[in-house]
Amino acid sequence: MHALRPFFHPRSLAIIGASSDPERIGGRPLRFLIESGFAGELYPVNTAGHAELQGRRAYRSVLEIAAPVDHAIVAVPIAAVVQAVADCARQGVRAVQVFTAGFAEAGAQGAALQRQLVEIARASGMRLIGPNSLGLINPAIGLFATFSTLLNGLRPGAGRIGLATQSGAFGSATYGAAALRSLGLSCAVATGNEADVDVAECIDYLAEDPDTRVICTALEACRNGDALRAALLKAADAGKPVVAMKIGRSELGAAAAATHTGGLAGNDAVYDAVLAECGAVRARSIDEMLDIAGFCDIAPRLPSGPRVGVVTGSGGIGVLMADEADELDLSLPPLPAPACSALQQILPFAVAANPFDTTGQVTSVAGGIERAIEVMLDQGGCDSVVAYLAHAGLSPQRFAPTEAALAALAARHPERPLMLVMLSTPEVAQRLAQAGIPVFADPSRAMRALGAAWELRRRRQALHRVPPLSAAAQAATPPLGAVATEAQAKARLARAGLPVPVERACASREAALAAAAEIGYPVVAKILSTEITHKTEVGGVMLNLGDATAVGAACDELLRRAAHHRPDARVEGVLIAPMVQGGVETIAGVVVDAVFGPMIMFGLGGIATELFRDVAFASAPLTKSRAERLIDSGRASQVLRGWRGAPPADREALADTLVKLSAFAAAHAHEIEAIDINPLLVREQGCICLDAVIAPRPPHPAPETERGTWHE
Amino acid sequence: MHALRPFFHPRSLAIIGASSDPERIGGRPLRFLIESGFAGELYPVNTAGHAELQGRRAYRSVLEIAAPVDHAIVAVPIAAVVQAVADCARQGVRAVQVFTAGFAEAGAQGAALQRQLVEIARASGMRLIGPNSLGLINPAIGLFATFSTLLNGLRPGAGRIGLATQSGAFGSATYGAAALRSLGLSCAVATGNEADVDVAECIDYLAEDPDTRVICTALEACRNGDALRAALLKAADAGKPVVAMKIGRSELGAAAAATHTGGLAGNDAVYDAVLAECGAVRARSIDEMLDIAGFCDIAPRLPSGPRVGVVTGSGGIGVLMADEADELDLSLPPLPAPACSALQQILPFAVAANPFDTTGQVTSVAGGIERAIEVMLDQGGCDSVVAYLAHAGLSPQRFAPTEAALAALAARHPERPLMLVMLSTPEVAQRLAQAGIPVFADPSRAMRALGAAWELRRRRQALHRVPPLSAAAQAATPPLGAVATEAQAKARLARAGLPVPVERACASREAALAAAAEIGYPVVAKILSTEITHKTEVGGVMLNLGDATAVGAACDELLRRAAHHRPDARVEGVLIAPMVQGGVETIAGVVVDAVFGPMIMFGLGGIATELFRDVAFASAPLTKSRAERLIDSGRASQVLRGWRGAPPADREALADTLVKLSAFAAAHAHEIEAIDINPLLVREQGCICLDAVIAPRPPHPAPETERGTWHE
Repeated sequence: MHALRPFFHPRSLAIIGASSDPERIGGRPLRFLIESGFAGELYPVNTAGHAELQGRRAYRSVLEIAAPVDHAIVAVPIAAVVQAVADCARQGVRAVQVFTAGFAEAGAQGAALQRQLVEIARASGMRLIGPNSLGLINPAIGLFATFSTLLNGLRPGAGRIGLATQSGAFGSATYGAAALRSLGLSCAVATGNEADVDVAECIDYLAEDPDTRVICTALEACRNGDALRAALLKAADAGKPVVAMKIGRSELGAAAAATHTGGLAGNDAVYDAVLAECGAVRARSIDEMLDIAGFCDIAPRLPSGPRVGVVTGSGGIGVLMADEADELDLSLPPLPAPACSALQQILPFAVAANPFDTTGQVTSVAGGIERAIEVMLDQGGCDSVVAYLAHAGLSPQRFAPTEAALAALAARHPERPLMLVMLSTPEVAQRLAQAGIPVFADPSRAMRALGAAWELRRRRQALHRVPPLSAAAQAATPPLGAVATEAQAKARLARAGLPVPVERACASREAALAAAAEIGYPVVAKILSTEITHKTEVGGVMLNLGDATAVGAACDELLRRAAHHRPDARVEGVLIAPMVQGGVETIAGVVVDAVFGPMIMFGLGGIATELFRDVAFASAPLTKSRAERLIDSGRASQVLRGWRGAPPADREALADTLVKLSAFAAAHAHEIEAIDINPLLVREQGCICLDAVIAPRPPHPAPETERGTWHE
Repeated sequence: MHALRPFFHPRSLAIIGASSDPERIGGRPLRFLIESGFAGELYPVNTAGHAELQGRRAYRSVLEIAAPVDHAIVAVPIAAVVQAVADCARQGVRAVQVFTAGFAEAGAQGAALQRQLVEIARASGMRLIGPNSLGLINPAIGLFATFSTLLNGLRPGAGRIGLATQSGAFGSATYGAAALRSLGLSCAVATGNEADVDVAECIDYLAEDPDTRVICTALEACRNGDALRAALLKAADAGKPVVAMKIGRSELGAAAAATHTGGLAGNDAVYDAVLAECGAVRARSIDEMLDIAGFCDIAPRLPSGPRVGVVTGSGGIGVLMADEADELDLSLPPLPAPACSALQQILPFAVAANPFDTTGQVTSVAGGIERAIEVMLDQGGCDSVVAYLAHAGLSPQRFAPTEAALAALAARHPERPLMLVMLSTPEVAQRLAQAGIPVFADPSRAMRALGAAWELRRRRQALHRVPPLSAAAQAATPPLGAVATEAQAKARLARAGLPVPVERACASREAALAAAAEIGYPVVAKILSTEITHKTEVGGVMLNLGDATAVGAACDELLRRAAHHRPDARVEGVLIAPMVQGGVETIAGVVVDAVFGPMIMFGLGGIATELFRDVAFASAPLTKSRAERLIDSGRASQVLRGWRGAPPADREALADTLVKLSAFAAAHAHEIEAIDINPLLVREQGCICLDAVIAPRPPHPAPETERGTWHE
């Protein structure tokens, strides 16, 4: 049994701090549970010594309860919380929720109290949600173990969507919106301060929960990236779609200042990568999250491919849906010849195409729409079918025969989702949902939900499982060594198997001339300084030096420029390297994310990197195939295939280099903050790291701060 | 009086082809009008000679009606339509709608019939909507002059949103969705085949209509760009927001093949430019269109700036709204000190900031939320205020005092929109709407609607009024002359005042050497051929030639490459030009759009142009300030300001060049299909057109095809 199951399926529930006032925080859960007919034992607890509360026998302490208590709610003033939780542990409570606020979110004193709660819970094996949490619900059994005032106006129904959020307000806003559109929930939980149970563990529970088919979550301040990854992968393996929102932009850490890669890692790119790798999709609004979750909940399966067959009573709406498909990764393929002739036979006045516009005349053909949809499902060669039926669902009686026919069709094609787009009464939409047919009112939103469903399926087919970082393995890794200068960084990367040019660090003009002669002209000269990271900005790179005179002049000029632009910087000399030309300029990098560990970045180099942020991230270590997907995720792939007549670049070598970089990053994640390889030149044969920066981790990491979060 | 007013405010209405069967196309409008209590005279007309139809006295012909008929509907078989329309003209009908299909959309024969209808209408001054149109409505007077079956299930209410679409299905889908969310309509019209009245003219009507406050439209196949521009500008001048959807991607014309600019003009970029210049915003879905229109309809004014003050009962939702603002052009500025202390006094436990999180404890302070919102409105220094109130609106009685207080606040601050985000009953939302407070359920959608409202206001402040192209002025323009080669094109642009390098077209190796000597080394050599447009792709450009040997070798090599890659192409020789270096590589261009005339394109050059499509369009001729906005609309502006230590580029000279290009394009719009200036190098001082292509218009333009469209 999952450790969290007693929270959601308690046979008995105590409310410590229960109130006779049904409006108070300790009174509301009791009222909700009674009103909703929760079938388990209910034990109101209040030290005041009432004989009963809201009609139920009351207890002075949880210790007075003679029977086992699966789940306890603590809603007492902060001064009494530690005692209440300790009592629960003594009583043998298996799952405790602490609603009381004023813990880690309120400062150091609260944080200390919060640690006490965790210690008590850990010592007894009791699990703890909160403190500062809003509660949880399981509508199917009438378990409304929350003080959310939402339930005053609306009681969510039972269903198969599970919801895990940190913020109670976000959670109740979501399940309130779900209830208003008749989507049912298996359960919803808000984790508050996450002293013990976090959102990742709730997702892990939902992945196992047989009542849950689809998982919605909001990610705010995930602390354990490995746990989140594992939970998401477990859901994906269980065939359960996860739809996630990310609230708040990623903090830009110290890495942002030191490297491009660190700066580009902001803007949620790391979350995007992790969600994609673990089979989840991201929604940009609560409505969009519920659109996607609703589709996945109702349709018998996710579409097995991108091909959509559209049947529409309106050419204009058909074009609108085709426009939308074009922006998503969906296609509206031409129909096979047998499908065309079948459609032509049914509706001879319409043009057999995809979208298939039945035209207004379809009303003159009995069952014309159903038969067209049937052809599309049977012979259209598509992975899903969308039918636009205008406002047919607003006239339930007229629509009844079509409704019955479509329900039968959907039952016959469980492998191929059928979606309707129309205005309808809630009852019609509900009946169709029962039949496995999602109904959307807005054509664009319908296509976006379908696109996300296909994306979920596609991602599930290409999960990237990153082994958790083992402290033991890291301890066994030889130390990184000195990486402060470009030369040191490149030498280190070369030892890790990455291709770098032969080059010489030269402390004098004479050494530079000798190095150039040895390497062979033309050469490049670069300023060598641990303190100048962005050499281009100080004019610190001089290219294509054809002879000794040029090299000598370049040395003088580089030192002059460095002194001019960065008089503060200590300069070690110049770096002499062969002039490498041709190929595609890309950027690769590493950022060691505080939550998700080492992440590899790749994208088009030069001005494109920063102007267009056309880079993507992937979790290290990469497999070969993950490296290839990373290469393909941006515009660089277009250029690498051979841009404007150039020969194709060596993708094989590039993928190999990224895999090696990722292995290096994973092994040294504890020592590194970020790495830039910029440019990484990808040539017709091989690739080469023309410049590299390794930003080591400062020796004393900042202490982890305790989490505070929002109360409703 | 507006020419279209008789359609929407008829004192009398005839239905030709009226039926006693309330389900038939000729029976439905009659039923709808009777059911909705249309107060004008109703004249059912049917040649069968019924005494009455659906309880109203019937006529055999519209000519039998002794009284004036303002508006007539024609819903007879196609063979009888011309006669019916002719009868209307004779009767003195002022406005006729033809519902019958089978005209231009069905082929040449139908197109000929359609022309007859137009001739009859024009001759008598009668206006015509359709044929193949679904009808129009004006709910305030019970005018449901349509056969849309939507009205079987739903009757839209009266309000201030006007809707003009070509597709009837799109229109009824939109007003159906509006009705389901209790948004009222001033009128809605579907123009069908647009033989006479088109969407642009309907927008023109709505701009004048005193009952219309906000205009929604769907643009499908606009034929008259000048009329659309004029109508949109009229609406903007009348202070009426226009929210537009564009259905269907722009067709890529012949210009796409010949020039970059033509290719990049696809993907709706031209529509985006025209809508922005004329003060309208574009919506990406019906829901988004109604979100924006609903906000504009309900709020007393559009926000006068981007600054938003957010009051929220949930920190998480506050962050979500701030995230959304960050992606839009909205800002959440820090609060002025007096506002902070006022908030601190009201809710001492909360942190005075923007977003202002009242925390859960706000419920312990009587009127705490209202007072916080009041401070934000009075002293927050913001242009609009958004308050997140969770699900308060689901409990109307508890919410009543807050509702009253907020209504009073909104009345006191008509200049500053107040928006609520909460779940609520429809009644609560309706009452707040009456008080000028839009209520949204989804926080993200709320912010997007607010962002669009601010965009509408901002665009209204910077309208770009393009004079219609005058045929007389074009006739007076001296002919374009020969522009087939790069040299000719550049010479022509130089005469128009654009900066081009000195360069020589050389028919021989010797001429090339002489030209290089005259221009001064280093030089550039390019292949010279009318038939090779994309020189780079055949290796047709050789840079940085330092001496005569290099130039001679380059001539040989260019001819060899041209012969190798394009053995079909006739080569005139080579072009010798000075080697110009440094500066920012941009692209400028012209495409003469079939609907909107000459459009100027500008963006970052090189690989960025095609990989990232970071280009924008503007209508020619440009004013200086429009040129500056065009320059600022993409990433190029960042680079032009001085990228990575480079000096700022000469924006002044660039703007001047774009203005001159636009004047040239406008004068020669009838002779030109497209122009590429690629690269247009913008230097520290001045800018220079390094390469240019002018694609002339083919002498015999394809005949304009008649319009066919979709029936519902």
